[in-house]
Amino acid sequence: MNRLKGRENLDRIPVAVIGATGAVGQRFVQLLKSHPWFELIIVAASGKSAGKRYKDTVNWGLDEKMPEDIGEKKIEEINSKTFKDEGIELVFSALPANIAKEVELDLVSNGFYVFSNASAYRMGKDVPLLIADVNGDHLGLVDLQREAGKGYIVTNPNCTVTGLATGLKPLDREFGVRSVVVTTYQALSGAGYPGVPSLDIIGNIIPYIPNEEEKVEEECKKILGKLTVEGVEPSPFYVFASCARVPVRDGHLESVLVELEEDAVVDEVKKVLRDYDGLESRTLPTAPKKPIIVTEDESRPQPLFDIYSGSPKRAKGMSVTVGRIKRIHDKIRFFLLVHNTIRGAAGCSIMNAELAKIEGYL
Amino acid sequence: MNRLKGRENLDRIPVAVIGATGAVGQRFVQLLKSHPWFELIIVAASGKSAGKRYKDTVNWGLDEKMPEDIGEKKIEEINSKTFKDEGIELVFSALPANIAKEVELDLVSNGFYVFSNASAYRMGKDVPLLIADVNGDHLGLVDLQREAGKGYIVTNPNCTVTGLATGLKPLDREFGVRSVVVTTYQALSGAGYPGVPSLDIIGNIIPYIPNEEEKVEEECKKILGKLTVEGVEPSPFYVFASCARVPVRDGHLESVLVELEEDAVVDEVKKVLRDYDGLESRTLPTAPKKPIIVTEDESRPQPLFDIYSGSPKRAKGMSVTVGRIKRIHDKIRFFLLVHNTIRGAAGCSIMNAELAKIEGYL
Amino acid sequence: MNRLKGRENLDRIPVAVIGATGAVGQRFVQLLKSHPWFELIIVAASGKSAGKRYKDTVNWGLDEKMPEDIGEKKIEEINSKTFKDEGIELVFSALPANIAKEVELDLVSNGFYVFSNASAYRMGKDVPLLIADVNGDHLGLVDLQREAGKGYIVTNPNCTVTGLATGLKPLDREFGVRSVVVTTYQALSGAGYPGVPSLDIIGNIIPYIPNEEEKVEEECKKILGKLTVEGVEPSPFYVFASCARVPVRDGHLESVLVELEEDAVVDEVKKVLRDYDGLESRTLPTAPKKPIIVTEDESRPQPLFDIYSGSPKRAKGMSVTVGRIKRIHDKIRFFLLVHNTIRGAAGCSIMNAELAKIEGYL
Amino acid sequence: MNRLKGRENLDRIPVAVIGATGAVGQRFVQLLKSHPWFELIIVAASGKSAGKRYKDTVNWGLDEKMPEDIGEKKIEEINSKTFKDEGIELVFSALPANIAKEVELDLVSNGFYVFSNASAYRMGKDVPLLIADVNGDHLGLVDLQREAGKGYIVTNPNCTVTGLATGLKPLDREFGVRSVVVTTYQALSGAGYPGVPSLDIIGNIIPYIPNEEEKVEEECKKILGKLTVEGVEPSPFYVFASCARVPVRDGHLESVLVELEEDAVVDEVKKVLRDYDGLESRTLPTAPKKPIIVTEDESRPQPLFDIYSGSPKRAKGMSVTVGRIKRIHDKIRFFLLVHNTIRGAAGCSIMNAELAKIEGYL
Repeated sequence: MNRLKGRENLDRIPVAVIGATGAVGQRFVQLLKSHPWFELIIVAASGKSAGKRYKDTVNWGLDEKMPEDIGEKKIEEINSKTFKDEGIELVFSALPANIAKEVELDLVSNGFYVFSNASAYRMGKDVPLLIADVNGDHLGLVDLQREAGKGYIVTNPNCTVTGLATGLKPLDREFGVRSVVVTTYQALSGAGYPGVPSLDIIGNIIPYIPNEEEKVEEECKKILGKLTVEGVEPSPFYVFASCARVPVRDGHLESVLVELEEDAVVDEVKKVLRDYDGLESRTLPTAPKKPIIVTEDESRPQPLFDIYSGSPKRAKGMSVTVGRIKRIHDKIRFFLLVHNTIRGAAGCSIMNAELAKIEGYL
Repeated sequence: MNRLKGRENLDRIPVAVIGATGAVGQRFVQLLKSHPWFELIIVAASGKSAGKRYKDTVNWGLDEKMPEDIGEKKIEEINSKTFKDEGIELVFSALPANIAKEVELDLVSNGFYVFSNASAYRMGKDVPLLIADVNGDHLGLVDLQREAGKGYIVTNPNCTVTGLATGLKPLDREFGVRSVVVTTYQALSGAGYPGVPSLDIIGNIIPYIPNEEEKVEEECKKILGKLTVEGVEPSPFYVFASCARVPVRDGHLESVLVELEEDAVVDEVKKVLRDYDGLESRTLPTAPKKPIIVTEDESRPQPLFDIYSGSPKRAKGMSVTVGRIKRIHDKIRFFLLVHNTIRGAAGCSIMNAELAKIEGYL
Repeated sequence: MNRLKGRENLDRIPVAVIGATGAVGQRFVQLLKSHPWFELIIVAASGKSAGKRYKDTVNWGLDEKMPEDIGEKKIEEINSKTFKDEGIELVFSALPANIAKEVELDLVSNGFYVFSNASAYRMGKDVPLLIADVNGDHLGLVDLQREAGKGYIVTNPNCTVTGLATGLKPLDREFGVRSVVVTTYQALSGAGYPGVPSLDIIGNIIPYIPNEEEKVEEECKKILGKLTVEGVEPSPFYVFASCARVPVRDGHLESVLVELEEDAVVDEVKKVLRDYDGLESRTLPTAPKKPIIVTEDESRPQPLFDIYSGSPKRAKGMSVTVGRIKRIHDKIRFFLLVHNTIRGAAGCSIMNAELAKIEGYL
Repeated sequence: MNRLKGRENLDRIPVAVIGATGAVGQRFVQLLKSHPWFELIIVAASGKSAGKRYKDTVNWGLDEKMPEDIGEKKIEEINSKTFKDEGIELVFSALPANIAKEVELDLVSNGFYVFSNASAYRMGKDVPLLIADVNGDHLGLVDLQREAGKGYIVTNPNCTVTGLATGLKPLDREFGVRSVVVTTYQALSGAGYPGVPSLDIIGNIIPYIPNEEEKVEEECKKILGKLTVEGVEPSPFYVFASCARVPVRDGHLESVLVELEEDAVVDEVKKVLRDYDGLESRTLPTAPKKPIIVTEDESRPQPLFDIYSGSPKRAKGMSVTVGRIKRIHDKIRFFLLVHNTIRGAAGCSIMNAELAKIEGYL
């Protein structure tokens, strides 16, 4: 049968990446290389790159080389039939939101399991907005979708939110979060490719990222919200977000000021952050051993030097680094760094799919 | 007499700049060029550059050319007798804090009027921490110093604070400020020269500037404090400051979240900021017509394009630009940009001396 | 009559800028502000910006503010009739080459005098490739065009070439140039807007600019060629060009190694460069007093600090700066800096039109 | 015995790195981690860092983490007795040239084998200026030194030269090189740490690196020179070097124009470069499989994406990448990229010591 031809390992689950040519799509391709559970069979894209070889059309901009076998693959159109012919049920989506809206819905209605980085369905009532090692229990929302049919969609949050929610989770669980003020220094890769023109950003800061501040608030509250039979009840804390673009390649830095329900001193905060173990998800291949690394160096975390702190190998880029933890008056202040295209995008999506597998959803 | 030789205009007040070779010292030199009230007679520096021609020792890094006549001047040692021989009573100081401590005290005890950008005496009980168009009335503190003798010192604030206090002043006067959360994107020139090594900052953010967060809080509260017979009573609001260095040449950008005593909507805030006229100081040669420019462009202010917004000519770089004013829950959020070596340093100091002149303190 | 309405000064020649919204178009707009001989009446653009106000559609990226009156103008379509209705005969073109090809030809056939920065017609046999203060006599080529009708086109060279040809001209005249090896460090604004994606160039060098090396050779030889009755006979020297893009905003730096016909020592070379006076063109409003500035500072010229060296006012950015002149074996080596969007584009085009005026071609 | 205490593996040769705290010193530390033949026993430095723990004093700026065991080591003073007590005979030097002059001489006279990155002795008559896979036979010069005593010094070239000489070697061997024009785009790490101030280089190019152009010429001719009984007879070709600093972290890019003795077309040049195998050295642990990688991508090599092209593992950063090979008139032009602190410094020095070992010089 066609679908088995050329597969390396029949035990691995065949997957497709859609939107595979962009910045996040490339990260999916990189991170799925030699994945123990998933095998990347199809790279697909909408529009004009379909039909070309992956390596001939992609402007590969990652620090690691393009996997050679993927480079040779022909880019497919996004087509349910083609996917099914290859035995694919699991699809990772790196599509832009406007295209994702229609395409992902169509895939779900055709029975596919879509793990999407796009923002289109993140706030959907029955859609998990998932970070496996933060709110893994929200995966249960999928049951609400499956009542309607076989397929479903699981989203991962905006890159800024993924870092922030990770840092807040242990604090919220231990002390309760009443409010959070977050101000960001966001990397260029967050805007995709070609993204930000060099003339706009070299030697400059742009204190505006369309829709970003709104997403930070609503997504953060959903992730830390409570799963009920009707969906997720958002966490009631207040979020005050200010977002800016900076001339940095990878890594979103965030200045965070948290008001806790229950008072805590710096050492308690450090301990709670350090001890956070990512719950049941910690054994997933892409889950970091420590979702949060606490640094004592007073000039860290810095994007250039710390985006890969924490777990090496498959979970490289999956830990959040927190530093400069300080009590100011009655609040706790820290700086937090997240790799925006790994933990903040493709890596999170893959970790979510891994959780779905061990929970029996694949 | 020697002191008159070569003076362009006997009606202008002769002045010296000490620490004239550094980044802020250069700004003093640039801004004093053809000043209508002051004439730069002596450029002085501590240490090894004394005795050399200014243009032979200075690594001039400004966008405007070095004034030719100053370039030809010999750099003097900082010496009261030399200064007096040249008829100088007014001294601008761009010294580093550690050197300023002793040198400025010595000058004051020798009867000089020192307008200093150094942090050494900013928090002194009888020392004005002055921004002429924000808290010009604090100049009165000088009377406390003069009881002890003829000289005195007037300081201008830290560069970050100068911008922040300007933005807060009209809001505090109109609505009352209860608390302020400020997160900064600070330019390289704020660290002087040679300052930040390129290997540390190219493509990177450093979320730490030694002592900066502490200065922001205490200086901001002093500037907006109330002048009493015993000194300045600091304003009681809370400041939560987080400071970071970014790869930008000039211009500190600040994300500000203000909690007001009296509720206000965005339009009221805009009006109050726009209408702010700098009080009695607005006619000083170096005072901007509008201390605060409010921009409606949703992606502004940006350091690269907006540091010179506002008054042209002598007050170029003296206005603060505010944008992205937004109400989030019960608070007001905006981004604010200040030229850190003009309004945030040399320009402010010169404007302060102008105020001293019209108030009869020179 | 409509065409006179709102004109500031009937003595000035009314002009249009086509392609007015891009990086070079903006420079035209900036440099034509208060021009003593030309008055900018129409800003025009192809495509979707026509019909909008200039300030509403342009992403203004220059260091000086957009002229307010131009900001209020409606962008026109490129239309001969509209231009004629406004009394316009002189058109400056900042169009991309592919669009210029058809549009400029159409304008010429309708009798307009087109001064174009586009590359489309630069190598045309009867088209002057002109730098007024370098090869002003080539303007005479226009006579060949005018035989066919009333309109004509005058082009200015590629930005890299404009700098190089200026530096070579006096050397060629005095000593003869046998060959030149040029290696470039080209600024981002040379690629227009949005131009180079930030992810491609931040912390990087791109050693490739499409078609640039070929243009450098052929254009340079035409400019320094000899005007004959049949056209320009290219100069016979050899050009070896290597071009790269660097993360610099404005200013092309070029490393140049020249082999001279007649031997010369460094001091002779310096004298010849310094003494170069731009021939008959030196009194034009936009012509620099000194087309070439020679610096003795061993670390100069640098793009950030030297692009505006030389004549201030209207001719700001019109001088080339040369430094590090050195004899290596039998050749002469120097670094040369040219402001790529002023002398290298819009400024050169305007200077050329000024020459046309005094030569009676307008 | 003390010297055996804590050694991982008695079969490995114990080594010291002197000048271990700087940019190149750090690369030595990184590259010696788990080296199969050498074991880093002592990290030493002159001056004030001695006595502190390595990790407490070093501003580690590399992309890989500091080896943990080295981080715990105490930095030693440079002292022959200490080194001998630890059984060390082989010393790698990353000292600045001025300090190296005396210190290295002292070590050699005490019998040590010094492999030095410093420029102090590179041009010494009996000192090999060695790139093991380019001019490995020059190691024989050491015999001239050993006549005088037991110790000796082997130097590796300047970072720019290491790349250039590698690219020229196969061309010289095959076609003969008559002259070479090289223009550089040199990375910041080449200037050490703190090195270039950010205010000097952000958004800028500095067309001057002290003494660099002179070194490029003389070192290049020595490396490609012929070993005779009296020393190395420099190759007679002409070198025209122009050097500039660019805002790039790692990786020197060089534009090279070569005049060959014997004519060659582009395909012949490519083949010769591609086929170059590094001679007898190709099996050394740190030698790249391919000293030269030829890329067909017309926009490559780029420092950001290509410094690690070629052999992975221990020889990562040891290959030179060449692209844009083109015939211009009678010459061959290409761009060449070398990792300036690996192949261009520490990596080359280690590879040289490996050659010394298999040749029986250790």
